[in-house]
Amino acid sequence: MTNYKLLLEYDGTDFFGWQVQPGLRTVQGELERAIEVLVKEKVNLICAGRTDRGVHALGQVANFKAAREMEPGVLLRALNAITPKDIVVRQVEVVEDDFHARFSAVARQYIYYLSLRPIAIGRRYAFYFPHVLDFERMKEASSHLLGEHNFEAFSKKMPEEKHYRCDVEAVEWVEEDHRIGFRIRANRFVHHMVRIILGTLLQVGRGILSVDQFKAILDQGDRRHPGFKAPPHGLFLEKIYY
Amino acid sequence: MTNYKLLLEYDGTDFFGWQVQPGLRTVQGELERAIEVLVKEKVNLICAGRTDRGVHALGQVANFKAAREMEPGVLLRALNAITPKDIVVRQVEVVEDDFHARFSAVARQYIYYLSLRPIAIGRRYAFYFPHVLDFERMKEASSHLLGEHNFEAFSKKMPEEKHYRCDVEAVEWVEEDHRIGFRIRANRFVHHMVRIILGTLLQVGRGILSVDQFKAILDQGDRRHPGFKAPPHGLFLEKIYY
Repeated sequence: MTNYKLLLEYDGTDFFGWQVQPGLRTVQGELERAIEVLVKEKVNLICAGRTDRGVHALGQVANFKAAREMEPGVLLRALNAITPKDIVVRQVEVVEDDFHARFSAVARQYIYYLSLRPIAIGRRYAFYFPHVLDFERMKEASSHLLGEHNFEAFSKKMPEEKHYRCDVEAVEWVEEDHRIGFRIRANRFVHHMVRIILGTLLQVGRGILSVDQFKAILDQGDRRHPGFKAPPHGLFLEKIYY
Repeated sequence: MTNYKLLLEYDGTDFFGWQVQPGLRTVQGELERAIEVLVKEKVNLICAGRTDRGVHALGQVANFKAAREMEPGVLLRALNAITPKDIVVRQVEVVEDDFHARFSAVARQYIYYLSLRPIAIGRRYAFYFPHVLDFERMKEASSHLLGEHNFEAFSKKMPEEKHYRCDVEAVEWVEEDHRIGFRIRANRFVHHMVRIILGTLLQVGRGILSVDQFKAILDQGDRRHPGFKAPPHGLFLEKIYY
């Protein structure tokens, strides 16, 4: 069996997320169908981070094993020829047999784009929150995310989740023209974490929460806070670290 | 009568261009309908440059006259509340009675974005031409556009057009990450001019045309050249000068 690693970009707008669901259009579903045409067997495509409905990817990583040996460049071009326009395979590599897109990953990086004004161009790719925001306070609050914390207060309740501890390795704010990006890298992310962090930081920016209250929510894990889940269209899975 | 000037951004993807056409979704049609709800009379919305189907605008300018006096900020918010998401009114001003969005304009500026790789994110906003391109040759060829020329070889044949002379005031190439933008400012543009210029510059970049051949097409006005009309989705009406 050959183990193939894919680097993927996709526009999440018209997908019901990554994971295959019967009758729904998903990234995994579209890709597995394309791969199966080429390698002529059923495959199981494993990704580094399952994105939710409407969430985009600039650098998702996935792998699958197949008996058929194909030259990576040939597979790359063939996949791009048959996948829909909202998925682009950026790289194909043949990797060691023990490479696993999810378990081999040591960190994931997301970026969430906020638009500073209403937009028509690129409105699928940034969230405009129609309130005056104090970005200095948001930056200060976000610095408390660094390090290992219990992110239960920033997660959807998931019965199967053993724990909510995540080690945040980096946070960064990127200013571009009329957009601001919030970048966050961690060893793992729990469900809806980036979007709930954003929705909580926006409440800090608006003055509904103080920086101290933000820190207390993080330290005490209290889910009854006024943060909301920011919409998916501002969120991009940017990079996977191995 | 009050003369209102609008600064507009729109995503051209789902419009049949600017100009009202019966039964089709157009930018002018959507805006006039919204304005008429607010000012309670029929209006004629005049724009600086009529964009074709699929062409975007970052800084289109339009004006209309109405008897009703509205505070510009109120009109701005009301329009954005009722226009569809792919149109954003960025500014509203009350202007002198003799201001005319088209006739008062002294120059128009477009930008055409090329993507240097296949893209999923933002694929509505940049054209990927799947060939190796020599951008230095394209830049050299484009410098010959400066000044007044007869652009008949770069225009759709329009019986009503009196002449095809345009004075190109500036050309600029903007490099960003995986995109390159070609910006051009002129006193006027003839039909499909920017898209045919781009399609011809791409043939220079590919080596199908030499820089000298490009210059000869421009000087001699010969329409039988291998340039093609680049697709609309890379093109943005960026700015109008008054």
